[in-house]
Amino acid sequence: MNFNVLLKTTGTVLFWESILMLPSLIIAIYDNSYDINGFLISIIVSGAIGLILKNIKSDVNDMRKREGYATVAICWLVMSIMGALPFYISGSIPSYIDALFETISGFTTTGASILQNIESMPRALLFWRSFTHWIGGMGVLVFTLALIPSIGGRTVFLMRAESSGPAPGKLVPKLSESSKILYIIYAVMTAIIVILLIIAGMPVFDSFIHAFGTAGTGGFSNKALSIGYYNNPYVDWIITIGMFLFGINFTLFFSILRRDWKNILKNEEFRLYCFYSFLGIMLIFLNVLPKFQFNYAEAIRHSAFTVSSLVSTTGYATTDFNLWPMFSKSILMTLMLFGSCAGSTAGGMKSIRVLILFKSILYEIKRTIHPSSVQTIKINNKSINDDTLKSILIFFTSYVMIIIIAIILVSLDNFDFMTTFSSVLAMVSNIGPGFSLVGPMGNFANFSNFSKIVLSACMILGRLELIPILILLSPANWKKH
Amino acid sequence: MNFNVLLKTTGTVLFWESILMLPSLIIAIYDNSYDINGFLISIIVSGAIGLILKNIKSDVNDMRKREGYATVAICWLVMSIMGALPFYISGSIPSYIDALFETISGFTTTGASILQNIESMPRALLFWRSFTHWIGGMGVLVFTLALIPSIGGRTVFLMRAESSGPAPGKLVPKLSESSKILYIIYAVMTAIIVILLIIAGMPVFDSFIHAFGTAGTGGFSNKALSIGYYNNPYVDWIITIGMFLFGINFTLFFSILRRDWKNILKNEEFRLYCFYSFLGIMLIFLNVLPKFQFNYAEAIRHSAFTVSSLVSTTGYATTDFNLWPMFSKSILMTLMLFGSCAGSTAGGMKSIRVLILFKSILYEIKRTIHPSSVQTIKINNKSINDDTLKSILIFFTSYVMIIIIAIILVSLDNFDFMTTFSSVLAMVSNIGPGFSLVGPMGNFANFSNFSKIVLSACMILGRLELIPILILLSPANWKKH
Repeated sequence: MNFNVLLKTTGTVLFWESILMLPSLIIAIYDNSYDINGFLISIIVSGAIGLILKNIKSDVNDMRKREGYATVAICWLVMSIMGALPFYISGSIPSYIDALFETISGFTTTGASILQNIESMPRALLFWRSFTHWIGGMGVLVFTLALIPSIGGRTVFLMRAESSGPAPGKLVPKLSESSKILYIIYAVMTAIIVILLIIAGMPVFDSFIHAFGTAGTGGFSNKALSIGYYNNPYVDWIITIGMFLFGINFTLFFSILRRDWKNILKNEEFRLYCFYSFLGIMLIFLNVLPKFQFNYAEAIRHSAFTVSSLVSTTGYATTDFNLWPMFSKSILMTLMLFGSCAGSTAGGMKSIRVLILFKSILYEIKRTIHPSSVQTIKINNKSINDDTLKSILIFFTSYVMIIIIAIILVSLDNFDFMTTFSSVLAMVSNIGPGFSLVGPMGNFANFSNFSKIVLSACMILGRLELIPILILLSPANWKKH
Repeated sequence: MNFNVLLKTTGTVLFWESILMLPSLIIAIYDNSYDINGFLISIIVSGAIGLILKNIKSDVNDMRKREGYATVAICWLVMSIMGALPFYISGSIPSYIDALFETISGFTTTGASILQNIESMPRALLFWRSFTHWIGGMGVLVFTLALIPSIGGRTVFLMRAESSGPAPGKLVPKLSESSKILYIIYAVMTAIIVILLIIAGMPVFDSFIHAFGTAGTGGFSNKALSIGYYNNPYVDWIITIGMFLFGINFTLFFSILRRDWKNILKNEEFRLYCFYSFLGIMLIFLNVLPKFQFNYAEAIRHSAFTVSSLVSTTGYATTDFNLWPMFSKSILMTLMLFGSCAGSTAGGMKSIRVLILFKSILYEIKRTIHPSSVQTIKINNKSINDDTLKSILIFFTSYVMIIIIAIILVSLDNFDFMTTFSSVLAMVSNIGPGFSLVGPMGNFANFSNFSKIVLSACMILGRLELIPILILLSPANWKKH
């Protein structure tokens, strides 16, 4: 392990984090709220540590794959540790573990909250809280779409091999340029949502908050009732479509820029994502229709919103879907597990993996019926090689095993099974709310500190798609080479 | 598909089933109970159809792998359809779907019941119900240990490759001989349990019932309170140890016969099975100690019994473990998923697969840290080849996907999540009771017919380890070749 590279990168990240806290400081000063000091101290500490570490002499090109993974994992942790300071110093969240949980939930774009009285928080802190979603979402995009190819990683490899959309490396010659295009698409789409929400009648500040939450597929709101507070069909539909779009593989937006519609419509991952989202909406619509006294418009609005919110792993709510029938909840949990497309800001297992898993089952059946014929799994007419298939199958296995272990640990709190199970699923898939006590109208305040740490770990594991963290924790990685 | 082979084999199975019903008929005649006709008609119908089909001209050696799988799946179904007749004809279970559920539950050694008043059933039917466990358990043993090698199947391949114990093919030259040794071991072990239970004070009839349930790792009892009815520590410990033993890979009993102790102690699957069983017992013991007012003997007895019962996928109960804390229940559910060793009468995923799954996760981490070094997964010092690994990973994926689909379907009944989830898990793993409404003191009577069919399908899928059924249902298999 090359520690200098690690420290230098961490320094750069911390330096940028202090700059990203500035808008919140300005809001605090403007409002003259009690959290000015919290932001001031955090910015100085983060900026100072950042500046010192940033100037360590080290060749970043010297980074190998495993160091890349470890660095990404550590950056995520350090950013959260620093990002939690404003909440803690201002006294707005008295427990540091709670503040850390909230910040990890922000950066991982999960959106699970321990706050029991959101609306009493100063605007600056609410802004920072939602801004972490936006930063996290961008971080994930850059991480998966731009940073990883240089370290030869898995996710982009996935997209390269499996999506017929142009990989960023093909479209633009350099890393920094492909990141720039991503930033622009991401920022423009966020801006459009802000503007549409304002037009629909949402207050300006709230529009920013909810645009950040939508773009990052995070789910923090400044209202206890989430989007349900506005009870405005325009707002609901804007966010429904917004969340769905941010769940699409961003390489497909390159295709849109190039007007390559065929490429989009033929993309198998995109088609599967559309398929299970729409199937989910229709089944839930039929299931909840009686709950809405057969008011079709209401039923379809809430079904579409909830499915889009959970499949994109955002976690906003227009209604308390915890009160829906078990059939709807089972479908929602399945969508929570599956998630959206790879290369989006969303969490979950990702459609591309779901697609490959289903194809691998068919492949195994065919292989048993016709043992002699050689077959391969194809996505978008390209064969998946055996190593990729094995990696995806092992990914799924790890995913399920981590869920099982986390459930056992969290069950020490002795909550009901739905709370225990859905909280873990919601954390690993970076969604936010689950069901029962952690439903959309509940929160995570009542968990023990131990469970909060376990759930925080789940959020980071889910966000970084397990392997970076497992590598970070692997003793073999820490030997001097 | 060679239909003649299929029909001939089914005929043989039906012929034997009618013979296996004779002991129950004798009990019915002895008791002069109302179910004499039920058995008489069933024996005649089953025997007649069996005799006709048995004599179809066909060369059984002409069976290919996929026909073998399809035949096994169909035999299991046909046996259940016929085996349900005595319950239905006697009027003791008025709904045929219920009777079928009960019989499938018997033959698959699941032990889930729709009976709400077990103790009012005539002895002949209770005997038949438990005898199906014993037949099913033997069927599974023969199927996995003896029948499959001739069709080149997976499970035995697993044991051949992974257990250092002698594969039956190595020990004895011929299929029929290795089956014979299995029958003898199985019968002798059952007889020992019957004798021990009688010595411990259980009535003779009940001893047979519970020995059948233990040997088949089934779980049907003739008492509503299951083993808890006797409240006898000797009985509890005999059955605890019995269930644990029947969860061991039967090839290891060959090693015992050869006094090859080293082979047993070094067997990685056996060690993992012991490890998680004992870990489970200790953790649950500590967790439930307060529930038993710190009575150590009581707490360890019930913890050991419950763990042994669920890990061996039997499903007997000495106490209502549904009332235990969530932590214990989470551990129990994990053990229900994992199950016992391959090549035993137990269900679940099987320890050998759990072992390979965990090793594959470690393997993936190592491969990411050191991409250049070639590594393989080893079990008992033998490398697992890539195709086997892929098959096991796909098996796990199918297992989880089938659980998800079944949960969605069963949730249409709108029971609570714990009931829905644990009923599906208990069916796929062939355990019997789950938690909440389907806990050890509950039953499956309240599910809709649709759910009962789904759950029946889950039992068969779990019992035959998915692939035979998936092949049976695959259209490609039904083309004339």
